[in-house]
Amino acid sequence: MPDRITLAHGSGGKAMQELVNKIFLSYFANEILNRQEDQARIPLAPLTLTGEKLAFSCDSYVVDPIRFPGGDIGKLAVCGTANDIAMSGAKPIYLSAGFIIEEGFSIDELKQVACSMAKTASEAGIEIVTGDTKVVPKGAADKLFISTSGIGVIPANVDWGVQHIQPGDQILISGNLGDHGATILNARENLGFGGQLNSDCQHLYPFVEALLPVKGIRTLRDATRGGVNAVLHEFVASSGCGFQVIEQALPVSSPVRGLSELLGLEVLNFANEGKFIAIVDPKDANLALSTLRQLKGGSDAAIIGEVNSSQKVSVLNAFGASRWLDLPWDEPMPRIC
Amino acid sequence: MPDRITLAHGSGGKAMQELVNKIFLSYFANEILNRQEDQARIPLAPLTLTGEKLAFSCDSYVVDPIRFPGGDIGKLAVCGTANDIAMSGAKPIYLSAGFIIEEGFSIDELKQVACSMAKTASEAGIEIVTGDTKVVPKGAADKLFISTSGIGVIPANVDWGVQHIQPGDQILISGNLGDHGATILNARENLGFGGQLNSDCQHLYPFVEALLPVKGIRTLRDATRGGVNAVLHEFVASSGCGFQVIEQALPVSSPVRGLSELLGLEVLNFANEGKFIAIVDPKDANLALSTLRQLKGGSDAAIIGEVNSSQKVSVLNAFGASRWLDLPWDEPMPRIC
Repeated sequence: MPDRITLAHGSGGKAMQELVNKIFLSYFANEILNRQEDQARIPLAPLTLTGEKLAFSCDSYVVDPIRFPGGDIGKLAVCGTANDIAMSGAKPIYLSAGFIIEEGFSIDELKQVACSMAKTASEAGIEIVTGDTKVVPKGAADKLFISTSGIGVIPANVDWGVQHIQPGDQILISGNLGDHGATILNARENLGFGGQLNSDCQHLYPFVEALLPVKGIRTLRDATRGGVNAVLHEFVASSGCGFQVIEQALPVSSPVRGLSELLGLEVLNFANEGKFIAIVDPKDANLALSTLRQLKGGSDAAIIGEVNSSQKVSVLNAFGASRWLDLPWDEPMPRIC
Repeated sequence: MPDRITLAHGSGGKAMQELVNKIFLSYFANEILNRQEDQARIPLAPLTLTGEKLAFSCDSYVVDPIRFPGGDIGKLAVCGTANDIAMSGAKPIYLSAGFIIEEGFSIDELKQVACSMAKTASEAGIEIVTGDTKVVPKGAADKLFISTSGIGVIPANVDWGVQHIQPGDQILISGNLGDHGATILNARENLGFGGQLNSDCQHLYPFVEALLPVKGIRTLRDATRGGVNAVLHEFVASSGCGFQVIEQALPVSSPVRGLSELLGLEVLNFANEGKFIAIVDPKDANLALSTLRQLKGGSDAAIIGEVNSSQKVSVLNAFGASRWLDLPWDEPMPRIC
């Protein structure tokens, strides 16, 4: 194979066959994908054994740089979509993967990305069962974009959703805030926090699975682009409730706090790629918290606030003063994920 | 709303909410999408009533120009993925749609694309149930890329696949060859065939549905990038059979033939976006053909050759001479779909 992607690799000819065979089929090999039909054929019977509803989600990944401390675009493309599925209570099982590659992109880098996707998927028990490759001329895309979609089955007794949120419910976060956003910001702008910052990019289903037996879970949502603030504003819009966050309760690592203070940015707006907000019945909030804290990577989970009826998002500071938190018109950075 | 897409439209803030609400949720509205969870939640029970296997497929669309005679990137993104699903015998029912938009792209054009997707999906009885929007800085992508994935259910008694192909089977095509490829080539290179050429971009399930009762169908595959030649070479690789095409039997419109002769290009390599190859037991080939020809848009369907054991693709010309047809290293054009 050549060193670099050429337009021929996206043309439907021999070059594309070679690329698909040597990279994607080789890294992602599984029984369904290996059949090389234009669509994955997935037996429904095992799915219906585990639940009554399919969770189906998609995301495109355009993160820049494509490799960053704690992950790369491949890991992100698997975890991001898997996490959107997991938030419904479903175990993510199958993914599709579509690649848009710029002419001239390094084949070695593509292999590294595919390898990272394969490793992440395998650790999560997910199979990449169908895919697509497009190559665009140099300058028509920046390096590599990946789109993944995925499916999982929501357990029969689980019906989480925004409609269950009520005033008095507790707001939990599964760990430290802002690691992914701060890491990308630092890598892009050379802010000098290298070595201290790592993206939290991770597969969240193990946390979700542990929460399945907790009766009082109202809903979960991963706090990606737009951060915790965006999630809480989405909840306001869909539930009609309000959400008060206690500033002192927010778990934030010191480098992330340092970076946010240096730039005067609100850490609640920072993107995460391995953290979620859980809204929980106050009766079960401590059980949910201790469940999360027992898990590997869950020791920083915290109760960070309470649902009220204000139809707004507010932050209570250490002096007992409350301020409204608007959803910003935009986020500090493009191409965060 | 402003006239043009800004980075804020992809940031997870208010601007993105407005874009999603005013365009995507408005054009694609349906019960599942309207819930605005991060994943579509699809009841499994209706799916298992119609079959035993899920067909799951994805594709990314990077076509240039984004509007062309006979379609646009939106229609293509719905039909292309729906057709990959339909080739398994499944009726496509749900789609995901992920947008990667270049900063500065016209909001009006985005509306037109979304409207075209909504219309195409609605005509095909498909719902767009989950999605994602990313905006990248000017120059990091060319205008607009769309990734769709979709699911459908394969009927219980249908088991089409390459493994069933046998020497003696007949090769059918569902209509004229090369319309999409010729149309894009003409539009891109200003070859002067304007007005005579139209992409064949269309939803193929109605053809597939009509073929479901035909017992002798071995397999179907839509002849997109790489054309009929690429499909036959994929069949060689997976089935171990050979495929002989009769040149005089190929249905080709006169403008497409004119363009291919002008440029000295093999029409079997031209991309299609609304045609498929069917491999059929010789006993049922005429039934399959007459079934296709009765359908709206199926009058040009033809038997174009026969399966043999040569493990190669060959073309028999009008003088009875046969030549091997190689799979080219690449196709004439990037960004055909």
